Amino acid sequence: MIIRTGSQKTALIVFAHQTPASFNATARDVAVQELSDQGYRVLVSDLYAMKFRAEATRDDIKGELKNPELFQYGDETMFAWMENQLSEDITAEQQKVTEAELIIFQFPLYWFSVPAILKGWFDRVLAQGFAFSLEKMYDNGVFKTGLDRFRLVWTGSDWFGLNFGLVLDNLYFSFRLISFRPVVD
Amino acid sequence: MIIRTGSQKTALIVFAHQTPASFNATARDVAVQELSDQGYRVLVSDLYAMKFRAEATRDDIKGELKNPELFQYGDETMFAWMENQLSEDITAEQQKVTEAELIIFQFPLYWFSVPAILKGWFDRVLAQGFAFSLEKMYDNGVFKTGLDRFRLVWTGSDWFGLNFGLVLDNLYFSFRLISFRPVVD
Repeated sequence: MIIRTGSQKTALIVFAHQTPASFNATARDVAVQELSDQGYRVLVSDLYAMKFRAEATRDDIKGELKNPELFQYGDETMFAWMENQLSEDITAEQQKVTEAELIIFQFPLYWFSVPAILKGWFDRVLAQGFAFSLEKMYDNGVFKTGLDRFRLVWTGSDWFGLNFGLVLDNLYFSFRLISFRPVVD
Repeated sequence: MIIRTGSQKTALIVFAHQTPASFNATARDVAVQELSDQGYRVLVSDLYAMKFRAEATRDDIKGELKNPELFQYGDETMFAWMENQLSEDITAEQQKVTEAELIIFQFPLYWFSVPAILKGWFDRVLAQGFAFSLEKMYDNGVFKTGLDRFRLVWTGSDWFGLNFGLVLDNLYFSFRLISFRPVVD
């Protein structure tokens, strides 16, 4: 259950470029300004600057594991989410997602997809229970009523002969699981 | 130029599961045994056990950057590869790739794709210059003559209604860039 107070909308920009002087960072700053001008409260997760960890490990769970002899990441993080035992960095990102009506993922294409640091954000933050469940996915997804929209923004040169449709399909397909509704405008 | 001596073939298993007692690890061990029985020298990169870093950062380049004011990961790692200035962990993995006639990527599906730790292996190890270039990609790729084949092996439950074709398409598309030739048999 997502509870919001007040009328100000919140936007979250999940940003995955290493360089403050980059075109990507400039574009992000323009987006922050524009969204602020539109009345949004804007949150930015600057993954490299935060030294966000990409690897899904046992350290994502505080305290004891349910099954230490056979560590199953997906199960353990689901139980940890239920008991508020996920690591602080994951919990902080989940809180931002919960508060956001708009999420923007901004990244350069690495191997026709998101950089590993952003893939790690997907893997770790969008945990089972928090972002999807057996009962709540696809058209009945957790975020169906909370999020107005999300946006993918990427940069990349075109000398690979990039199949952008395929890239889009793959990323959008993933997000449909949790009822993120993409917009292109 | 890849130079090999002797007739023994080498296989590389890039393994991305956290748990030594897992089904994945057991399957890996069976593959190691089977390949050894067939006469292969078998190398295993157990990414979690190695604490392989997924994030593409400035630390991937030893010494000075070409352009410290505007860090561009792809350019800097290409130059670093040319001058043998990539970090030790990347260089070690590249050496294994160079020696291998067969590469197996084994992983559980996370968000319809590889876990971030394996995406980081792609992002960091398969650097421009080493794995592809403007002149050497697709049908003329760097590994066209070196690698006999590569294999993707994944595990995952099917309750998502997984679109395996899409997952395959996306991963295979990426690898065609460097002339990895997938086999399914």
